Amino acid sequence: MTRKIRLGAFLPGSGQHIAAWRHPDQPADGATSLAFHADLAREAERGLFDAYFLADGLAVAFGGGTEGGNAKVAGFEPVTLFSALAPLTSNIGFIATASTTYEEPYNTARKFASLDLISGGRAGWNVVTTATEAAAQNFNLDRQLPNADRYKRAVEHVEVVKKLWDSFEDDVFIRDKETGVFYDTSRVHHTDHAGEHFKVRGPLNVSRSPQGHPVIVQAGQSEDGRGLAAATAEVIFTAHQRLDTAQEFYRDIKARARGLGRDPGHILIMPGVSPFVGRTEAEAQKKYDRLTSLILEEDGIALIRGLTGGSLDLTGHDLDGPLPELEPTEGNQSRQALIRQIADENGFTIRQLYQWVASARGHFTVVGTPVQIAYTLQEWFENEGADGFNILPPWLPTGLTDFVDLVIPELQRRGLFRTEYEGRTLRENLGLPYPINRHAAARAAVQAAE
Amino acid sequence: MTRKIRLGAFLPGSGQHIAAWRHPDQPADGATSLAFHADLAREAERGLFDAYFLADGLAVAFGGGTEGGNAKVAGFEPVTLFSALAPLTSNIGFIATASTTYEEPYNTARKFASLDLISGGRAGWNVVTTATEAAAQNFNLDRQLPNADRYKRAVEHVEVVKKLWDSFEDDVFIRDKETGVFYDTSRVHHTDHAGEHFKVRGPLNVSRSPQGHPVIVQAGQSEDGRGLAAATAEVIFTAHQRLDTAQEFYRDIKARARGLGRDPGHILIMPGVSPFVGRTEAEAQKKYDRLTSLILEEDGIALIRGLTGGSLDLTGHDLDGPLPELEPTEGNQSRQALIRQIADENGFTIRQLYQWVASARGHFTVVGTPVQIAYTLQEWFENEGADGFNILPPWLPTGLTDFVDLVIPELQRRGLFRTEYEGRTLRENLGLPYPINRHAAARAAVQAAE
Repeated sequence: MTRKIRLGAFLPGSGQHIAAWRHPDQPADGATSLAFHADLAREAERGLFDAYFLADGLAVAFGGGTEGGNAKVAGFEPVTLFSALAPLTSNIGFIATASTTYEEPYNTARKFASLDLISGGRAGWNVVTTATEAAAQNFNLDRQLPNADRYKRAVEHVEVVKKLWDSFEDDVFIRDKETGVFYDTSRVHHTDHAGEHFKVRGPLNVSRSPQGHPVIVQAGQSEDGRGLAAATAEVIFTAHQRLDTAQEFYRDIKARARGLGRDPGHILIMPGVSPFVGRTEAEAQKKYDRLTSLILEEDGIALIRGLTGGSLDLTGHDLDGPLPELEPTEGNQSRQALIRQIADENGFTIRQLYQWVASARGHFTVVGTPVQIAYTLQEWFENEGADGFNILPPWLPTGLTDFVDLVIPELQRRGLFRTEYEGRTLRENLGLPYPINRHAAARAAVQAAE
Repeated sequence: MTRKIRLGAFLPGSGQHIAAWRHPDQPADGATSLAFHADLAREAERGLFDAYFLADGLAVAFGGGTEGGNAKVAGFEPVTLFSALAPLTSNIGFIATASTTYEEPYNTARKFASLDLISGGRAGWNVVTTATEAAAQNFNLDRQLPNADRYKRAVEHVEVVKKLWDSFEDDVFIRDKETGVFYDTSRVHHTDHAGEHFKVRGPLNVSRSPQGHPVIVQAGQSEDGRGLAAATAEVIFTAHQRLDTAQEFYRDIKARARGLGRDPGHILIMPGVSPFVGRTEAEAQKKYDRLTSLILEEDGIALIRGLTGGSLDLTGHDLDGPLPELEPTEGNQSRQALIRQIADENGFTIRQLYQWVASARGHFTVVGTPVQIAYTLQEWFENEGADGFNILPPWLPTGLTDFVDLVIPELQRRGLFRTEYEGRTLRENLGLPYPINRHAAARAAVQAAE
């Protein structure tokens, strides 16, 4: 089978871009509307996306603009939301974020196994350690645990969850009404995990689900994050603005995986891409300009202030003039220097600067025709930059519809993307293997040795 | 408005009765079938039930029969399951069980607020402290915490969750695309809770949901349980076999609530009822006999053994003969004496004894015609025994369908039950008040004083 591009869709109901909710197409109450999320799921499924992805935090995300202008202040809890969307769709996968720091593995294992049962095998878990002080303060702490401690806990948390998902072997249920034998007691297993952070006897009280294990997803960029991802992730979300840095990351992760004895083909690397699609270049640029024009001036200023740790406050300056010379402050000097460099290199006014920052913030923004965008994706896909992409439509639903109607057919025409779903489960569609139950494997090994 | 009977439906996909899964009508794989649970939800909604209820434990419920015959060994996690059922229904409420001992209040508050958003205001939380060693061993402990400690934590957990549900006031969202004001910053509140068990800054990152607070449900029978229920519950599940004990409980709870300054009409007491309904008495009895005949002999013996703490093992005895004289053992003497008393008083054979135990186990079993059953419910409802009932159909779906087709019309004919849903939310249907947001109330009090 030829290698195909994998596509995820980041579809927060509020839209991705800071000003998305002010766009005429975007329902202003999208963040808390089930109906809108259901429309998005069906639209992404029409585009044959592999998965619908939702990020998650365990605190209100204040900041990143003025407080009162933040449409991401409240939303759904993603696992419950995806459980609701599952019966309304039939093929698209659902990748929900959940924290290894502020949840217990027994609860994590249950909710993802349950989502996998509900969706007929379409669940994925985006493993995060939740790195904010605000979240720590919602869970009995004053300050969050050091990064290294959170990662050690994450490694063990994932290990326990996977053990719990193996509590029941695939062929455990007999359900013979005549004899009264419901299950084979020799195929249900205690977990008996006792580690540094967790002690879990098991078994899980949710049965093994259609995928065996929901797909494990991660987004680590740091050294600890790369290590965890190479060891356990099956899909990696990443953020790169340029092919060369994407290639460095791609090759590093695949090499680490190979070093750990894993098949590098079973770790799919998917950078984020924020597309503005037009039938012509001018139309695409107009869409970009339209959305960026909706950034409130005070939100733009607050964004620069936030990114520089409060050291660069441009209040009162002419937004259509150049970045002024300012006295160095006690604040975050390197971030301030970076912002200044971006402005100087591009000859940006203050307004152009915050528009660029608001739009690009970690994501690779592409503005162009379907052919131009498909060409860029193909270039990354064919040159060790990506196995697929996470599409972040800047506003919704039009940003998604544009991609489905215009870019998907162009990718299909080039033979780079599916024309129908290959399988029933997320794992099957992504081309990932079914995890053999560890207890069945151990028994098979013993039998082979005898 | 005349007082009406409230009805909940306990509908585990495995069926309620120990042998339900062996009944020809019951899908053997019901416990892990979304489609079957969806059928049950729609059927209960056809019967105009107030709510679909699911119990929950945080460990596999081994015991209560032979292990391999246990159809309750694995199921769904209830909040994810109800999230999936919500878009497939429109009026019925969803009361899910969740533990105050093994979850954190921020996570509890989020998932129930999210279910309430998803269902348009139909969520309820059955608050439990999870009293099993097996659960403790899935959460880093060797033995569970003492009862009193679990209850103290429960009281504070519920308090924190309610505070979190008040993070956003009702009229917080402005969403004015023109001005860019998404919300009123003065109507979002930190929680700033610091107590013995929890320290939670807030605010919650899920918005206030249609019910303000999902309905709080409890099932305490002990002194601690009654105290917690009288202080915080809006619905109380309880188990009584006789009207006089039901009345004692009812009057005690209502008196406690009155003593705490609560309106006793805002605490609905709902005993469990397991109905076998026939068009004639003989037909009802035949249904009872049919189901009890499906209890495997070894399951019946294991049930008696389990209930007596292992002290009464009847293996090898004639099941259709009387309970033998046995040497007293070191086991649980009082339980053994109770079992013997039941057998003696009723003149039961061993088989009749375990059939009675299997069926009645805590629930009030009624076997009869629709008129007989409606009369019993009416008697309890009109004499301070109950505000409503939790119906536990012994097997599914027929046990539920019988009740919907035969008993509901009889209750309606007597003017005791609704003929259509009164409201959109669970709270409205139950006749429970909308909780005023504490921050709005505090501001109103200040304004009134000025």
